[in-house]
Amino acid sequence: MIFYDCATAPSPRRARMFIAEKGLQIETREISISEGAQLSEAFLAVNPAGTVPVLVTDTGLALTENIAIATYLEAICPDPNLMGETAEEKALVAMWNTICESRGGLPIAEAFRNSHPAMKGRAVTGPRNFDQIPALAERGMARVADFFDLLEARLSGSAFLAGDRMTLADITGYVFVDFARVVRLRLPDTHKAAQAWYAGMAERPSAAL
Amino acid sequence: MIFYDCATAPSPRRARMFIAEKGLQIETREISISEGAQLSEAFLAVNPAGTVPVLVTDTGLALTENIAIATYLEAICPDPNLMGETAEEKALVAMWNTICESRGGLPIAEAFRNSHPAMKGRAVTGPRNFDQIPALAERGMARVADFFDLLEARLSGSAFLAGDRMTLADITGYVFVDFARVVRLRLPDTHKAAQAWYAGMAERPSAAL
Repeated sequence: MIFYDCATAPSPRRARMFIAEKGLQIETREISISEGAQLSEAFLAVNPAGTVPVLVTDTGLALTENIAIATYLEAICPDPNLMGETAEEKALVAMWNTICESRGGLPIAEAFRNSHPAMKGRAVTGPRNFDQIPALAERGMARVADFFDLLEARLSGSAFLAGDRMTLADITGYVFVDFARVVRLRLPDTHKAAQAWYAGMAERPSAAL
Repeated sequence: MIFYDCATAPSPRRARMFIAEKGLQIETREISISEGAQLSEAFLAVNPAGTVPVLVTDTGLALTENIAIATYLEAICPDPNLMGETAEEKALVAMWNTICESRGGLPIAEAFRNSHPAMKGRAVTGPRNFDQIPALAERGMARVADFFDLLEARLSGSAFLAGDRMTLADITGYVFVDFARVVRLRLPDTHKAAQAWYAGMAERPSAAL
């Protein structure tokens, strides 16, 4: 297998943490987004969407989405389980993973890509250039605050997002909360439960990679 | 189990088709979005996010995201398989399901919710109101065209999105392509492979529900 990574971006970090939590060592190639390598001819031949992460399997299948990479690795390497054992737990992992993407990762990315000078003309990932939309950046900021509130509400009653142990959902939530620093948003001090969860995730060896 | 549905919206339609393809009959309650029932006190007690679909399990767990509902039903009712048998097939289903959401469903929703008069002040689902952003509607339209091209490229070499049989990914793709009618976008006549796939999906009894 070959794992196409980028040290500075949140999406590949999710896959990198998942791989580390599985205890897997996979040949890794760095695709430097700051150098535009994700849009190079060589990489577009791997993933025409020009996004990382990508996991290329031993049969040559290019998996281009985090959930596809996690699903594949969970199937070929079931231990430790990171996506749920029972029907209910599997569903909760899938649910919270998606909630963290759609109500956390997406608005953070909208806020960042539509406001940061380095993202000018690059408001959407992929080969096509889109102008920034300042109003979308503003909306994203408001929604990130709602996401932090949602995390606090959930984690006040549950040690981890999908229940009593760390799963894929926590990796996704953690990576996006951490990434919110790029738009200068952090979990408020009032959010004690979310803060404790975040601190616990930050201490995991997989978070340091 | 109780399934909270809405006859007019694409997200609950995805779950409705999945349930039908599984051959399941689940007690269903209609939540009329046109009447604002998704934001009623009664429904917010079921799902504080104010979104449909929701599947409440027999143990009272409220699953609020399509992928969570599908994951749960696939686990408790494995036949017919709709989310993949092998590691590679599972990964491909997850990948194409996500691609259809992020590169199809999201831009279509952006185009619709940020332009249609009925969506004024409702540019984002959920209890909080957000103003429409016309530039986002415009961007959404451009991205939907790219999505149609992507479908054509994939379906020119594969009978279905994840391989040689119908899966969750096709339900997601089909529902969003159909929903694009709300922004007056349809698969171009030049997209023969995607057209054939779409026609096949439209003929399934689950598509008529």
